[in-house]
Amino acid sequence: METIFTKIIKGEIPCAKIYEDNQIFAFLDINPINPGHTLVIPKESYENIFEIPNEVLEKMIVIAKQIATKQKEVLNADGINIGMNNGKDAGQEVFHAHIHVIPRYKDDGYKLWHGKVYESEEQKIEIQEKLKF
Amino acid sequence: METIFTKIIKGEIPCAKIYEDNQIFAFLDINPINPGHTLVIPKESYENIFEIPNEVLEKMIVIAKQIATKQKEVLNADGINIGMNNGKDAGQEVFHAHIHVIPRYKDDGYKLWHGKVYESEEQKIEIQEKLKF
Repeated sequence: METIFTKIIKGEIPCAKIYEDNQIFAFLDINPINPGHTLVIPKESYENIFEIPNEVLEKMIVIAKQIATKQKEVLNADGINIGMNNGKDAGQEVFHAHIHVIPRYKDDGYKLWHGKVYESEEQKIEIQEKLKF
Repeated sequence: METIFTKIIKGEIPCAKIYEDNQIFAFLDINPINPGHTLVIPKESYENIFEIPNEVLEKMIVIAKQIATKQKEVLNADGINIGMNNGKDAGQEVFHAHIHVIPRYKDDGYKLWHGKVYESEEQKIEIQEKLKF
């Protein structure tokens, strides 16, 4: 599928590129949570994590780690969030898979969602049985 | 470092296990964003993404993908968030690295953070120059 990211990879839309190899491309998110927020994408246009071949996904996460390490070193980030939103109902906005690498700072104001508890032990076991492999 | 996750891996604290091999362990988060929310961890106690060897990180993300795929299939999730919080200031609470795999549903009430804009094109380029490799 043609998206804004396809055009960025082709150079038809400008971006602040951080990294590129034959399979992976990384660039600054234009609407950063904090400055330096980077997106790591495959050059092939896979829509989401379900479609990305394992070997490409492996490369993406290793590049994300390298970028996270640089964000700590050169931007003095106190912490790093790695995130990947798959599907509109998970907040995905561009339908070309991407990993967010987000530098975080003490008291920068962002809060993570809080979890709930399971309704019952039975509910938890039922879900475990469905998911386990 | 000894954490609650070390005890879970050893079986000293019970958990609802989803998957285990010689390097990776996955189990239900006891405080799920939505039921089925799973944590994927290395058996070795690496504190965060910076410490995890690439080959272990690669296995973690592939297992996370498999769990995400199961969450869609057997829990009818509409979308999946993959997340990894590295450092206290990024919301990490247990200091044994873990990838969250979170099933999401239309209108389940969780909202992602909104990004800002860069103060100037110069600020963006300065940060790009620091990060690129």
